[in-house]
Amino acid sequence: MISVEEATRIILSNRYKPETVSVALEQAGNAFLAEAISADRDFPPFDRVSMDGIAISSAAFAAGQREFVVDGVQAAGVPQKRLGSGTHCLEVMTGAVVPEGVDLVIRYEDIEIANGKAIVMSDEHFRGQNIHSQGADVRRGDVLLLPGTLLSPAEIALLASVGKSKVLVRRYPKTAVVSTGDELVDITATPEEHQIRRSNSYALAAALREAGVSPGMFHIPDQEGRLRDDLRGIASDHELIILTGGVSRGKFDYVPAILQELGVEMHFHGVAQRPGKPFWFGTAKDGKTFFALPGNPVSTYMCLYRYVLPWLRQSMGSTTSPLTAFLAEDFTFMPIVTCFLQVRCRVADGKLMASPAPGGGSGDFANLGQVDGFLELPAESTVFRAGDVYPYVPFRLLE
Amino acid sequence: MISVEEATRIILSNRYKPETVSVALEQAGNAFLAEAISADRDFPPFDRVSMDGIAISSAAFAAGQREFVVDGVQAAGVPQKRLGSGTHCLEVMTGAVVPEGVDLVIRYEDIEIANGKAIVMSDEHFRGQNIHSQGADVRRGDVLLLPGTLLSPAEIALLASVGKSKVLVRRYPKTAVVSTGDELVDITATPEEHQIRRSNSYALAAALREAGVSPGMFHIPDQEGRLRDDLRGIASDHELIILTGGVSRGKFDYVPAILQELGVEMHFHGVAQRPGKPFWFGTAKDGKTFFALPGNPVSTYMCLYRYVLPWLRQSMGSTTSPLTAFLAEDFTFMPIVTCFLQVRCRVADGKLMASPAPGGGSGDFANLGQVDGFLELPAESTVFRAGDVYPYVPFRLLE
Repeated sequence: MISVEEATRIILSNRYKPETVSVALEQAGNAFLAEAISADRDFPPFDRVSMDGIAISSAAFAAGQREFVVDGVQAAGVPQKRLGSGTHCLEVMTGAVVPEGVDLVIRYEDIEIANGKAIVMSDEHFRGQNIHSQGADVRRGDVLLLPGTLLSPAEIALLASVGKSKVLVRRYPKTAVVSTGDELVDITATPEEHQIRRSNSYALAAALREAGVSPGMFHIPDQEGRLRDDLRGIASDHELIILTGGVSRGKFDYVPAILQELGVEMHFHGVAQRPGKPFWFGTAKDGKTFFALPGNPVSTYMCLYRYVLPWLRQSMGSTTSPLTAFLAEDFTFMPIVTCFLQVRCRVADGKLMASPAPGGGSGDFANLGQVDGFLELPAESTVFRAGDVYPYVPFRLLE
Repeated sequence: MISVEEATRIILSNRYKPETVSVALEQAGNAFLAEAISADRDFPPFDRVSMDGIAISSAAFAAGQREFVVDGVQAAGVPQKRLGSGTHCLEVMTGAVVPEGVDLVIRYEDIEIANGKAIVMSDEHFRGQNIHSQGADVRRGDVLLLPGTLLSPAEIALLASVGKSKVLVRRYPKTAVVSTGDELVDITATPEEHQIRRSNSYALAAALREAGVSPGMFHIPDQEGRLRDDLRGIASDHELIILTGGVSRGKFDYVPAILQELGVEMHFHGVAQRPGKPFWFGTAKDGKTFFALPGNPVSTYMCLYRYVLPWLRQSMGSTTSPLTAFLAEDFTFMPIVTCFLQVRCRVADGKLMASPAPGGGSGDFANLGQVDGFLELPAESTVFRAGDVYPYVPFRLLE
């Protein structure tokens, strides 16, 4: 059995190497960028009016002039106009090009317009006011986004502004979620007394979909031959294979042996943690990655959020570091293994406060509906004090 | 002009009333539940083996017996077996029914098996050990999930376990994103010098898709007639209409007048905030909701995350409260309006630390790629101190 730290190190040193794929901008949300994006123009691309009002010469204003004949209107989306006389003005609209011959925009709130003349009612005006200068934010050629950036709506807007209707992103691995266990029946079936419905694979698939991956879902009975044949087929069609169940010390836990038969190199089997001790991890020579998660629902869930999803994100280019949270109440845990404590987590006065809600053990997945994530309590200690700060693995958004 | 608090109150008292719709469980992630979900069986539905090992009678063990003849195997997914003799044992697998006649499971790590006999190597064993009792977590009929619950992967697993292959969820409003502004050209076009490409509508659409909504996207030029006709058509086909641009004091800002012409009741126009002052909000008698956001990109973005998305989530049933964060550096802001300060936000030692990164104003959307959210600095103050805590509006996941 290895430590949580060692398991993390091994997993993260066996990352997936994503290919790139071109997608429509509308489909690029939540993807990781695979190209550097530069500005094709200055931002703004011209001296831009940033308030509705009138545009005048600041020299005329400084010389004491307060009344300006309105020559016309410079609307947004119209080529640049020219002020006829240095003592006149143009009405200008937000987003318009600043007309030639002016260098000050005074907003409507500060003027009155009557009989074709604008009268300025206030004095605190200066050259450049309400003008967003060409290139003030970004210069043409500046790098806007680097490869590996996760594309949130803000980045989507930037990509739109430089005309990237198609964008190169990193392709997520083709992923299979594979459940095993003869006690599991389909969710549309009525289970016999000794059976339960599959639920782990639905949780795994839903979490992967949130992360941007659309996995295939498979179930294999606990029969050595079936497991060998089915897994061989699934492995040939997928790059990331996430199994749940069949990985412990039971008589029908064939998964580790069969994966090795299929040529998958085992990196570890067993991690000093609760839940999730029987966790198995391996890779194949062709770069395919196999996470075999313990079948107890809470174990499956913890391993997914603590190991699989960070591996996936870091493989795609993410460089984010783990969260931390305050333990809100004293907690005691005797075994000398890392404890992934189920917690409710709230932000109170700027602090992440994690309240223990351990539930009934690794089989009690009803409890997962009541909590928000896992607080990672280190193996070396047994008594954990309210107010201490520990790594926090969220599986639900902060509220 | 009204305050941010008043604008919030008005918006949230005009919620959308969602209909319910039945969706396949695989499609229910990120949706809000529209029905109460009860347990159709106890959880676990039977006394369940929670460790691989042997099952024995605790009375025999308490009487000093340490060697047990192995009668056979109780696998998972197989009907309950019966222990032939009170002094024998059965091998039992995780997930199996606890056989009749036993009440203690001892894991393989604590025994040795040879010549058809299991010898227990340790003494600390007790009745019920490694048995997850029927109904320990949930009783048949217990309510597992209430209407209004946001369905994360944990809830999806619960729904699977009770056989909900189809689930009633609240239907998101049919949504239109409408940009206006004659300076805007399609992202596939090469803009003239006085033009820029549309980007706001892409940001809005991407953020809505993250929230679970697939909006239609429309662009209308700044012409009164076109705006009236197109908006009438869009309003007839959609329930939530989010406009960007055309809402300020410019000569071609027809949006507020035309919405009122179309029978939309204006609730406010103008909020004491920066950015986003010209923000307009209205509703129609038939329940349709209109957010007309200022066209400056940062204003659009702020209003979306501060007003539109919380309105949407609360309409669907969410009861979450806003986040708060520590201001990481002193900041000064003179105007007597609420300042939505762009910040980078990191969790350090359990605290959300928000560092000011104000960028170049409401037109500088390149800056949005560098920040994580808005810190909401109240209108009454002008000097904000490092270490103070304020409401935090994230638009990017915490890292």
